[in-house]
Amino acid sequence: MTDRLDRQLAFLIESDRLKRIERASWITGRIRRENSAEHSWHLTLFALTLADHAPEGVQIDRVIRMLILHDLVEIDAGDAPIHGSHNAEELAAQEQAAADRIFGLLPRDLGEEFRSLWDEFEAAESPDAIFAKSLDRFQPPVLNLHADGGSWPEYNVTEDQIRTRVGHKVSKGAPGLWDWLSPRLSEWFRGR
Amino acid sequence: MTDRLDRQLAFLIESDRLKRIERASWITGRIRRENSAEHSWHLTLFALTLADHAPEGVQIDRVIRMLILHDLVEIDAGDAPIHGSHNAEELAAQEQAAADRIFGLLPRDLGEEFRSLWDEFEAAESPDAIFAKSLDRFQPPVLNLHADGGSWPEYNVTEDQIRTRVGHKVSKGAPGLWDWLSPRLSEWFRGR
Repeated sequence: MTDRLDRQLAFLIESDRLKRIERASWITGRIRRENSAEHSWHLTLFALTLADHAPEGVQIDRVIRMLILHDLVEIDAGDAPIHGSHNAEELAAQEQAAADRIFGLLPRDLGEEFRSLWDEFEAAESPDAIFAKSLDRFQPPVLNLHADGGSWPEYNVTEDQIRTRVGHKVSKGAPGLWDWLSPRLSEWFRGR
Repeated sequence: MTDRLDRQLAFLIESDRLKRIERASWITGRIRRENSAEHSWHLTLFALTLADHAPEGVQIDRVIRMLILHDLVEIDAGDAPIHGSHNAEELAAQEQAAADRIFGLLPRDLGEEFRSLWDEFEAAESPDAIFAKSLDRFQPPVLNLHADGGSWPEYNVTEDQIRTRVGHKVSKGAPGLWDWLSPRLSEWFRGR
């Protein structure tokens, strides 16, 4: 039992490093860039607040569990900005290795439980995972609208690119949220 | 419906400010101080990982919901370091006013649901709230042990003070976690 708790704590202490992973996104007010730990918190609050936009059958508490865990692999693999360029295959391999190592710190049963939730999120096929992914795509543009465009100007992102990279996933998992975002994107780009 | 979603988003955008609230605690490696948003995320991960230390009857998903919301009032009221000095009555009044304003941004039903969870957490009487509070007390010393004592040296905190301010609440809600922490505290203070 002591060994079990030691492993649980080793995982929790290692997970603290997610606070050091800087994302391309900015927090509102463009004060500084967002880190992946506070981003994960914000997403859990999005899930709790926007639960009425989840399609029928989605279990919000499972979505929240996925969102708590979803970025832990970035401790080893780093954050891959959606508007940046990266080798998808290489990144996937790095994230798999990260998941092996990080969830492997846990007692076996817990490690398997968390890994299975993360695998489900990554696969983006189950209703819970599809909704979780749509929130993960929805939150950054919402912040950008309140951070002078956030990372859009730096990456020279066009409205069309956002519609392709973000719109598809958001409207798939949460069409009502895309309907809210879409005209606001147009307005922001018209105002540049 | 549009108005409802506008209010949900106004709340989520305002909540971003929790990322700007600096705590007395440091993140591991003593890299920088922790903010209240990433602290909230870390606590949800503690709850998920240490669920087997929750007394019977505790619903972990409710604990996680409380922990997601528990520090939002700090957006207006700021963080009150456990080892600092503050007027408890004044702080409680500030936090109540903050809860009125922040949860008041939401559609009425959601605002009442979140406020009720936060009230339950603050009251620290239900099994879910007692466990949530014990995690909120347990996490900072765990980080401090991996951050050269974190805020302890700055506040000239003694081992006895930690045992009083932290030990009581942790052992009340999660005795096994206190049994893990207690000898490690002694070892750290012996090594100073």
